[in-house]
Amino acid sequence: MAVEPNAKKRKSDDNKHSTEILSFAGFDFCKVLKNDLRSKTAFIHSQFEGKDAVILMEKTAFDANIVQEMLTEKTELVETLKNDVYSTYKTFPDKTLNGMKTTLIYPATKQHIAKYSEQEFHIVQESGEDYKKVTLPYVKNKALSNQWVYNILNKETEADRIVFEDTCPDSGFILLPDMKWDRKDMDALYLQALVHRRDILSLRDLDQSHLPLLKNILEKGLSAIKEKYGIPANKVRSYLHYQPSYYHLHVHFAHIKLDNPGFEADRAHLLTDVIENIEMKSLYYKEKTLVFKVREDDHLYKAFLEHGCIQK
Amino acid sequence: MAVEPNAKKRKSDDNKHSTEILSFAGFDFCKVLKNDLRSKTAFIHSQFEGKDAVILMEKTAFDANIVQEMLTEKTELVETLKNDVYSTYKTFPDKTLNGMKTTLIYPATKQHIAKYSEQEFHIVQESGEDYKKVTLPYVKNKALSNQWVYNILNKETEADRIVFEDTCPDSGFILLPDMKWDRKDMDALYLQALVHRRDILSLRDLDQSHLPLLKNILEKGLSAIKEKYGIPANKVRSYLHYQPSYYHLHVHFAHIKLDNPGFEADRAHLLTDVIENIEMKSLYYKEKTLVFKVREDDHLYKAFLEHGCIQK
Repeated sequence: MAVEPNAKKRKSDDNKHSTEILSFAGFDFCKVLKNDLRSKTAFIHSQFEGKDAVILMEKTAFDANIVQEMLTEKTELVETLKNDVYSTYKTFPDKTLNGMKTTLIYPATKQHIAKYSEQEFHIVQESGEDYKKVTLPYVKNKALSNQWVYNILNKETEADRIVFEDTCPDSGFILLPDMKWDRKDMDALYLQALVHRRDILSLRDLDQSHLPLLKNILEKGLSAIKEKYGIPANKVRSYLHYQPSYYHLHVHFAHIKLDNPGFEADRAHLLTDVIENIEMKSLYYKEKTLVFKVREDDHLYKAFLEHGCIQK
Repeated sequence: MAVEPNAKKRKSDDNKHSTEILSFAGFDFCKVLKNDLRSKTAFIHSQFEGKDAVILMEKTAFDANIVQEMLTEKTELVETLKNDVYSTYKTFPDKTLNGMKTTLIYPATKQHIAKYSEQEFHIVQESGEDYKKVTLPYVKNKALSNQWVYNILNKETEADRIVFEDTCPDSGFILLPDMKWDRKDMDALYLQALVHRRDILSLRDLDQSHLPLLKNILEKGLSAIKEKYGIPANKVRSYLHYQPSYYHLHVHFAHIKLDNPGFEADRAHLLTDVIENIEMKSLYYKEKTLVFKVREDDHLYKAFLEHGCIQK
């Protein structure tokens, strides 16, 4: 069993597995790795029982139902400015109404810590040749393990979260909510489709032989979202990342209102565009120069430098 | 003196004007006008003493100093997911550490309420045929005047802001800072290149005859930015919008660190991609389905509906 950080019960219940209430007791603060002012997320290097942890603390968007509960005398206001009809206040709602979200990575590797540290970025233009020479060896050697994906595909974890499954080994996939979505706020709807095939690393591998798979994901993914959540296709963006954060083919489905940092034009490739480009030319994604943003401390960036494919 | 909403003192101080501590007592909730998930701001229509109020409640970014104080046993965690080394928690810090910001508009006019109300968006898939049938007539009839662009090209306005000019009537352009850039913060660098030719409405018009123009903008635009501001090409994103906000061909140049809402994958088209796609196929952008996001109250959206090219 994985180590459970600080499973301290708050109420003196017996040992039943009801909702366990934990805390940050026992975590030693090391450093704020990054403080993202836009997403209002702090990335913290910490230690627990001598091992590294990465803590992502994120302010959450408002729940429209809770907003109403905040408009009472329990929410304290401290005036900071007043001008004509406009005034501003520091605002302290009741603790229980003002939750945040924490993602804990424990134990964390050096790569996890580097991934969440503040960094310089560069634009890389990756030709088809660059991919074979630089990126593919990097993916095979350095990329993080896909074990967590296989756990899901094997129904060893998160089986209860599956929204839809097509079990076909060639064109099938599992659709489930992204970790970043609370599954309540429909405007923030965000799911991922993980394909059952394990031989497709990314967009780069796709050609006309994969069209049935891609069209199946588009069609059944959108219709499952319509059926389960009532959100129609013209409100859902479906796209692939390049570079992806893990090299097992997957497709993102996000609500058009979700202002997602992963939807930048040098990372997100619309699934409908991918299908149309491959229909036009089977080898489109094997030959196309693909542009992406990369962190200066990323091994992939270093590999591009070492091979002389880019200049510093 | 303006009405002071609910000036209830929490401590029984005298009537001194020290920091007054107020609350939301006496505010009647009417409606959530908009819930912005990205900025984590709720816009609320409320009433106080029978008059309208607009309340903007915004989650604030983390203060790096306060983060450390949150890593104690006082911060409660409720586990919501666990998979391998990753786990997520609802997180409830001490109330005093977890302030938000409120902006109050009181009394508020109908215009204030409309300004902060939600708009619906839709994804439109525009085929080459749709463009000719719906979009082109719309652009010719309804789009805003380009007179302000011609004023710049004629040096009648903003001549002192020009960063670079290539005067060639076929492949020339004027490069100048975007109005949104303060010209001080280099991480927010943002310029636009306006072409001298007046016969190219947008990306849709481009074919191989425009390759010299496009390559000229890419090369000379990036080198002018390097020379004037010291920002190298691998830190600058160059792209076109579709739909653009005005129908006179122009190219955006923005710093890679600028978190620009105009760089979404269903609006921004990288200039290098545009060049490569046209080199591959001259009519690429005349035939390609182009995907864009449109507001429900936009005349273009209504035109698509009227022509039966999309369903509501």
